Amino acid sequence: MSLLVVGSVAYDGVETPHGKVDRMLGGAATYIALAASYFTPVKIVAVVGDDFAPQDVDLLASRNIDLAGLERVRGGKTFFWAGVYSADMNDRTTLRTDLNVFADFNPKLPASYRSAPYLLLGNIQPALQKNVRAQMNGVRLTGGDTMNYWINDFRAELLDTLKEWDFLLINDGEARLLSGEQNLRRAAAKIREMGPRTLVIKRGEYGAVLFHRDGHFMAPGYLLEEVFDPTGAGDSFAGGFIGYLAGRGVAPSGGEIDFAELRRAVIYGSVMGSFCCEKFGVDRFRTLTREEIEARYQEFQNCTSF
Amino acid sequence: MSLLVVGSVAYDGVETPHGKVDRMLGGAATYIALAASYFTPVKIVAVVGDDFAPQDVDLLASRNIDLAGLERVRGGKTFFWAGVYSADMNDRTTLRTDLNVFADFNPKLPASYRSAPYLLLGNIQPALQKNVRAQMNGVRLTGGDTMNYWINDFRAELLDTLKEWDFLLINDGEARLLSGEQNLRRAAAKIREMGPRTLVIKRGEYGAVLFHRDGHFMAPGYLLEEVFDPTGAGDSFAGGFIGYLAGRGVAPSGGEIDFAELRRAVIYGSVMGSFCCEKFGVDRFRTLTREEIEARYQEFQNCTSF
Repeated sequence: MSLLVVGSVAYDGVETPHGKVDRMLGGAATYIALAASYFTPVKIVAVVGDDFAPQDVDLLASRNIDLAGLERVRGGKTFFWAGVYSADMNDRTTLRTDLNVFADFNPKLPASYRSAPYLLLGNIQPALQKNVRAQMNGVRLTGGDTMNYWINDFRAELLDTLKEWDFLLINDGEARLLSGEQNLRRAAAKIREMGPRTLVIKRGEYGAVLFHRDGHFMAPGYLLEEVFDPTGAGDSFAGGFIGYLAGRGVAPSGGEIDFAELRRAVIYGSVMGSFCCEKFGVDRFRTLTREEIEARYQEFQNCTSF
Repeated sequence: MSLLVVGSVAYDGVETPHGKVDRMLGGAATYIALAASYFTPVKIVAVVGDDFAPQDVDLLASRNIDLAGLERVRGGKTFFWAGVYSADMNDRTTLRTDLNVFADFNPKLPASYRSAPYLLLGNIQPALQKNVRAQMNGVRLTGGDTMNYWINDFRAELLDTLKEWDFLLINDGEARLLSGEQNLRRAAAKIREMGPRTLVIKRGEYGAVLFHRDGHFMAPGYLLEEVFDPTGAGDSFAGGFIGYLAGRGVAPSGGEIDFAELRRAVIYGSVMGSFCCEKFGVDRFRTLTREEIEARYQEFQNCTSF
């Protein structure tokens, strides 16, 4: 069933130990939409400038992503980010952030988007995330991402937004900051009281932990032979996660999503995050097939069962 | 079947965010033996001084650990180590290392020890590890631990020792140092060519990865509500791992240990490591029962299956 994705569509400059690309397609909404598109129909809400290239539109369209909500600002430039990764690629330094047209992003949903049952809110200002949800008619499942900046400086606004979410996907540092708890289990318990009954804490190369009323589930990170570029891995995880749930038509019952479906969604998220790292930027999604996804899901099964 | 454990028996001074203990029973062989004792009969080879307290002998004896090989040096003092942990307990700083009688440790096996079929060599000088194995009659399974110091400064001696081992248990930093490879899969492939056909890479709170001819297996770290003291967690992991294999009488076939048994051994290792962190030093082993161990093994099953 159809999924609405809101967030940044951008150009990135990235340097890793394996190479350097000055400008390539990026942005959270791009990675989320591409990853989710293997599981379910996707609609995107984002803003770009005049400089957004036809071949990048073509890539998104080739995955059947609905671009009716991709606003193009005349005379504007697309959000640009540049960064460099450490030798082990566990840290990165931002070299440049030009918000450009993204600075005034105020998502407006085309009428054709409002009845999408699934909503994934990428990391933008919490009030805008809330506003997107308010434009929708009876969304079935809402969740998304946030970051340190909103947790620190827009806390009340963020808490007001999170109240309406079914799930939250953040990393361990963000979970500790949001909850004020160092221990992940305690952090998760506090965050689940803020609204999202399902919490997924992403731990980069070490995998992810899912917290639910009925317990928690731990997924290891896939052991890649070679990590070329981790940019977008977390967003690809989010895309695989929500894409799987939307594709299956999963609905919460009494506020809780089925735990078994969520476990599988976390593995599909891990699968998509791992593929993302295999090439620069979004390049892996140019050739990736559903068969490769299923094979890697099976690999996760083989590597974790006992 | 009986297991021989060689390594340090010591006193530790430990400070964590949860408290400080000036002097308590510690040492790699102590933790390995205590953890393994839940699965199989254990014999210990180690050296202590006059100051080794009767109540510490009693604790080991209460777990039916054979102390015929615990040498006591008259007029000598027991190995003493002191350290302080960082706020998140992922790092520690050594404050003091007094080798004392451990400096001249030259393990001699009582005749009653020589036919033990299982051998776990704790982190001591590689030539001594090799010498212990040479004193045994037809050991069935040999493995152990090492550290940066031996990898850097005793490399040839270490490689000569490792040739005879069936398994090696080290952390990720040691695996990278030993192999010269940053990527864990490549590191593991190189190390498996050095002799140990089974490699377990310990990743602290993030769990462990088992590498085998037939693939790899990833075990997550148990999510504790409260980590009191991580001292000895890696050694307790080793004790649970080899203890399980010895208890089951597992024998390698064509140089390879059964992959399914190894997966279960890694989980029992993780279980024992997790219990170890729940109290200071060896305190958790004073009350731990086999029933609690089985319950936590089941918890691992519940937290990882999908």
